[in-house]
Amino acid sequence: MPTQFDPPSGTRDFLAREFEARERAFNIIRSVFSRYGFEPLATPAFERLDVLMGKYGEDGDKLIFKILRRGEHEGTGEADLALRYDLTVPLARVAAAYGSQLPVPYKRYALGPVWRADRPGKGRYREFTQCDVDTLGSASALADAEVICAVHDVLAGLGIGGFRFLLNSRHVLAGLLEAFGVPAGLGAGVLITLDKLDKITPARVTAELTGRGLPEARAAELVAAMTADDAAERIRDALKSSEEGSAGLDEVDTLLSLLTGQMPAGRVAFSPAMVRGLSYYTGPIWEVSAEGVPGSLAGGGRYDHLIEQLGGPDVPATGGSLGVERLLLLLPPEADEHSRLDVAVTIMDQRHAARSFALAAAARSAGLRASVYLGASGKLGRQLKWASDQGARWSLIYGGAEEEAGTVTVRDMTTGEQTAVPASELAGYLARLADEAGAG
Amino acid sequence: MPTQFDPPSGTRDFLAREFEARERAFNIIRSVFSRYGFEPLATPAFERLDVLMGKYGEDGDKLIFKILRRGEHEGTGEADLALRYDLTVPLARVAAAYGSQLPVPYKRYALGPVWRADRPGKGRYREFTQCDVDTLGSASALADAEVICAVHDVLAGLGIGGFRFLLNSRHVLAGLLEAFGVPAGLGAGVLITLDKLDKITPARVTAELTGRGLPEARAAELVAAMTADDAAERIRDALKSSEEGSAGLDEVDTLLSLLTGQMPAGRVAFSPAMVRGLSYYTGPIWEVSAEGVPGSLAGGGRYDHLIEQLGGPDVPATGGSLGVERLLLLLPPEADEHSRLDVAVTIMDQRHAARSFALAAAARSAGLRASVYLGASGKLGRQLKWASDQGARWSLIYGGAEEEAGTVTVRDMTTGEQTAVPASELAGYLARLADEAGAG
Repeated sequence: MPTQFDPPSGTRDFLAREFEARERAFNIIRSVFSRYGFEPLATPAFERLDVLMGKYGEDGDKLIFKILRRGEHEGTGEADLALRYDLTVPLARVAAAYGSQLPVPYKRYALGPVWRADRPGKGRYREFTQCDVDTLGSASALADAEVICAVHDVLAGLGIGGFRFLLNSRHVLAGLLEAFGVPAGLGAGVLITLDKLDKITPARVTAELTGRGLPEARAAELVAAMTADDAAERIRDALKSSEEGSAGLDEVDTLLSLLTGQMPAGRVAFSPAMVRGLSYYTGPIWEVSAEGVPGSLAGGGRYDHLIEQLGGPDVPATGGSLGVERLLLLLPPEADEHSRLDVAVTIMDQRHAARSFALAAAARSAGLRASVYLGASGKLGRQLKWASDQGARWSLIYGGAEEEAGTVTVRDMTTGEQTAVPASELAGYLARLADEAGAG
Repeated sequence: MPTQFDPPSGTRDFLAREFEARERAFNIIRSVFSRYGFEPLATPAFERLDVLMGKYGEDGDKLIFKILRRGEHEGTGEADLALRYDLTVPLARVAAAYGSQLPVPYKRYALGPVWRADRPGKGRYREFTQCDVDTLGSASALADAEVICAVHDVLAGLGIGGFRFLLNSRHVLAGLLEAFGVPAGLGAGVLITLDKLDKITPARVTAELTGRGLPEARAAELVAAMTADDAAERIRDALKSSEEGSAGLDEVDTLLSLLTGQMPAGRVAFSPAMVRGLSYYTGPIWEVSAEGVPGSLAGGGRYDHLIEQLGGPDVPATGGSLGVERLLLLLPPEADEHSRLDVAVTIMDQRHAARSFALAAAARSAGLRASVYLGASGKLGRQLKWASDQGARWSLIYGGAEEEAGTVTVRDMTTGEQTAVPASELAGYLARLADEAGAG
């Protein structure tokens, strides 16, 4: 049952443990992209409404969160701003705004939240993180290959196993329609149906194609070629009859030759039935699927005119998008218990509080995470319970006895063993603990 | 002149260089807070409208960005959500929502954007980053001291110089009003005027106090005490006549005794005229000022009932806020040129492209940032110009001559010196370059 204190429907609070797991993954993503020379870009959470409207189709437009005008205009009930819906339209705006200030090609990644007023559901949020990587201004197949390799390295870096890249080209798809004599007017619909070959039976696909107006013999022939054991070979043969199809095959083969050396065998394959929904792709397209995971983990392709259509300059472009929220669900769970502190410092009484406070500072100076006890109890047992709840590996204890002896008691929270460390040797002792904790 | 491609008024795009400078600062902030055992919290960009409204006073409410209802409700012109205005109200909601799941005390920091529909101006944005650090559930002065020390360590870690903590207590201020016979009804106004002592002359402060209804002799006496060379001493003496004032002094002195050992001498001082605007503080208050910088770099204090007033549980609380955008302006400029790559790999011709692509991958495997040339020019000079624009320290060249000799040419981009590295020795060579670049 949601309460009035829950975050708004479709959004989430991230407390420490989940926040840190996400940040660890984000840092891997950032570091891989940076290693490829992709640079970060951050744009505002909202854009002017007219920058966003009309870019996502009618259904997309409905999912845009609009921001009400302010002050005297609030009463109009009109919006002038809107939360960003994706990271591509802001990229097009940035490409238009900064033009010659941007490097050529402009290789950028963006990692951040986007907002969509979708019906919230399992794994579907209204505020969720997207991650895009794109190269603007290069028509080279090397740019496509670089994006794919970078996405590959991200997935491998995250520890995701059993994933595969499906590779195709819009030119292959166009050639396929030509080779199998699909009338031009039916092309788009036929592709949408063929995209379902991994979800529904060949017979149902054939029926759907027939329903779309394709003669039954043609439909059966096409589906047979695409579902055969040697589908890739049969499609290759069929494409030879089409100029565009042959060019598409060359495109695919060039990419395959660049990629296969950089990935374990079998991780990338020509997949002539892989269509991808979006109509704006103009060249190679790819998708990452993983065993037992419905949908794709990442996808992308070349989209040479999209940036111009979105209001930016007319530049060749290629890129990809990671399904971040889906990937986060696949990450291996953390083995370690969540720990907030390395060192917990007890407060024996008010007279010794300042010294204890200074001990925590000394531990921090050594690179350890450390804090004094901030509660009201004067009982050692209670304070050690707190130390243990914080995941502290050691406690420092300083009271009357320690003051008299000129020592600090260091308690190993795992073994319960206590060591009296002379005050003069404390800095060195803490430095050794920091080494042990792998801090510094 | 703003163009249609600029980000919305009061917001900014962060391209690589600025993004990275901000991230470096944010990482220092995160790492200091984590060392104190403060844990991160991230909440959604928007909250339900009723969670935010009425929490910031009438003027604050006007600055809230409201989000229009969606679908069939869009036409009503009503809002149901709003962008967060600060990080404190979301903290109160989280404290209410997660209650016993949170550690006690709950020490958290939050670092992220907030949105205010303020008139944009120099250094004033509509989307800007806030950073809060708070401890909920501890009434101990150690908790106040910990927040102040953490903020101190952040400022020192950022390399900010010449800053000072001004320390006071709401109890000192209440005692001051009592000791100087200020009628209860005038108290709040008198404090607002006294807060101006660092901005306007004592004579004008006295006049303003008189204007507020304070007898002229009282006003003059109060201002004289607070502006005397030995102001702190005179105020201390005066406070002895007030029970609340004495308690406030004890509070300040306890804090000073905890802090002085952890900071360079003179970095924190009792400042009886420092008021801080917000009325919700209930104990110690503090502010950080720096020479030559108007306003404060950070500020905070104890606010024992605010979380309850904001809809959370009734817990003692203390915290502080960093003026992040202001701090970022004070950071020493980066000495280094912006560099995107360590290694740039040329593409001599299509025949050698796959090998060059693999060379970039090998450099990345060694921990270097590396990319192939993605442009259309086959000219070495043009490609080396690109390498230099990327800030690359080395270029790798592989063409017909290298293929024949079984080598790769490594060009030092600073000296122009070229080395022919046998293919079999390349991995070791790249590892040495990575060492040199400090990568890995």
